[in-house]
Amino acid sequence: MKRLDIFGTLRKDMEYIERELFRSIEGNELLNETSLHLLKAGGKRLRPVFVLMGGKFGDYEIESLKNVAVSLELIHMASLVHDDVIDDADTRRGQLTVKSKWDNKIAMYTGDFIYAKALLVATQLPNPEIHQRLSKAMVEMSIGEMEQIRDFFNTEQSVRRYLLRIRRKTALLIAVSCQLGAIAVNADPRISNLLYQYGYNVGMAFQIQDDLLDLCGTEKQIGKPPGNDIRQGNITLPVIYALQDQVIRERLLYEITRIHHMNGQCDVSNAIRMIKDSSGTQRAEQLATQYINKALGALAELPDLKIKRNLKDIAHFVTKRAY
Amino acid sequence: MKRLDIFGTLRKDMEYIERELFRSIEGNELLNETSLHLLKAGGKRLRPVFVLMGGKFGDYEIESLKNVAVSLELIHMASLVHDDVIDDADTRRGQLTVKSKWDNKIAMYTGDFIYAKALLVATQLPNPEIHQRLSKAMVEMSIGEMEQIRDFFNTEQSVRRYLLRIRRKTALLIAVSCQLGAIAVNADPRISNLLYQYGYNVGMAFQIQDDLLDLCGTEKQIGKPPGNDIRQGNITLPVIYALQDQVIRERLLYEITRIHHMNGQCDVSNAIRMIKDSSGTQRAEQLATQYINKALGALAELPDLKIKRNLKDIAHFVTKRAY
Repeated sequence: MKRLDIFGTLRKDMEYIERELFRSIEGNELLNETSLHLLKAGGKRLRPVFVLMGGKFGDYEIESLKNVAVSLELIHMASLVHDDVIDDADTRRGQLTVKSKWDNKIAMYTGDFIYAKALLVATQLPNPEIHQRLSKAMVEMSIGEMEQIRDFFNTEQSVRRYLLRIRRKTALLIAVSCQLGAIAVNADPRISNLLYQYGYNVGMAFQIQDDLLDLCGTEKQIGKPPGNDIRQGNITLPVIYALQDQVIRERLLYEITRIHHMNGQCDVSNAIRMIKDSSGTQRAEQLATQYINKALGALAELPDLKIKRNLKDIAHFVTKRAY
Repeated sequence: MKRLDIFGTLRKDMEYIERELFRSIEGNELLNETSLHLLKAGGKRLRPVFVLMGGKFGDYEIESLKNVAVSLELIHMASLVHDDVIDDADTRRGQLTVKSKWDNKIAMYTGDFIYAKALLVATQLPNPEIHQRLSKAMVEMSIGEMEQIRDFFNTEQSVRRYLLRIRRKTALLIAVSCQLGAIAVNADPRISNLLYQYGYNVGMAFQIQDDLLDLCGTEKQIGKPPGNDIRQGNITLPVIYALQDQVIRERLLYEITRIHHMNGQCDVSNAIRMIKDSSGTQRAEQLATQYINKALGALAELPDLKIKRNLKDIAHFVTKRAY
């Protein structure tokens, strides 16, 4: 899936959003350099796409939608920059990260700058409900990120704890993207709530898939070396499931403890192989599929518009994507 | 000056704001711990005080002012947490910093959390002008912080460049505090603009004084070891002026280069003594006084209310404060 391939009908408007994204971060030489570096690295622009798609369920009007779309993508981008500081990630999407090309401190302020720009864009929206939902999503995201740090190398965490964390870290912002697209064009609240449900479940599946790819993908597929999560102690769903498998539990715990002691500066292929050999990856895939089915259930209740085809395609794509 | 000593008339309302501040950061166990640590460390709560004082120039009503006051203090607090990451500061206000008690990553997300909470509080305000001015101030602050990093150990920077930086980093948020207090209670725009002028000039003087204290204060006075700025390469006004003094310029440049090479892990008392012996500190004090006089000029044009006495006291206090 190239960035816009499946969004033929929205292509023109997405190109407009892309220009607006670049315009939104203007203002300062060094910050422009770091922010542009990030924007140019691309990305799927999933959140703006969801905003526009949500907008199809009301009086679709790109001028009412553009600031919501830009603001959400900026919030997402800012969180990625701060994420990379935590992850000690050198590459993302096959490109050097801001923290690796510059340093952690510059990455931190680049993130702050992009967050602030996201808000400035959002203040141009007339609807206070949108501001509130955006800032609530940001609060939840920062809690999710913090929970992730707290749970590093916590091999006793439950599936529920993992799900709560990715809900905050990822799913809420995607849910809000779908919902706010509808709210921005005055769609019926029943519709915007269904879109929220759709987005939430797609977001959950998306993050589970992302965590699976980090273990099972190749560097070419995911734009960074695999095993990054386990190296930094981020215990994801396939690992939690694998740890429930009594046959490998003790050996896997030993491997994770070793990785912890080595601060992740070691070969992790042994741990990855064990997880792959367990039922962990398969069970994680099954849970992702369950979320997708819930998303499709919400979709089924929405009015029968052409855009539903695209929303369905994205939902299916999420569990099949190879990057 | 204890926190509220000179604000007798506003004491009750400031106690209310203090409770609201604590209430605003509720929500997550670990983030609460780090944020509470920060709140409990105290501070002068200058920004909330300015909001309430600004409110005296309109239909003063604490319920209309509280969210502005809380939001501004939270923005300030979040910027301090991120500042401490950059400064590698172990103590602030005599207390361990978040980054030192926990670590840089937790400090980064604590800052993100507090920023997001600040916005959530702000979204409860009905006036979109307030949102816009708040988010603009945040954009400028992040640019100012970034400029500060860029100018570390830049001994060729001009006074103008320094002033632009502290304008963004400090003065704008204080200006906006005074202004938004008035806007929140529907004061006349002419009045809120004069309050902005007052706050801006007090803020400039405040930061110059802060930079002077970092060089000339004692650890007891400033709650952290002196010389922190020069150790990290933050070239402040007294240093820029001292470098203009041909008698000591070469020796001071040599000292700063040495500090740079040692990454600040060295004795800086030699450099501090040179700056003190030059006309640098005196000239910086003079410029601070000029800003205070401008602040008093703006104040003189404001309607003759009792609160002007307090605003005048704060302005004078800023150039005399010993912490």
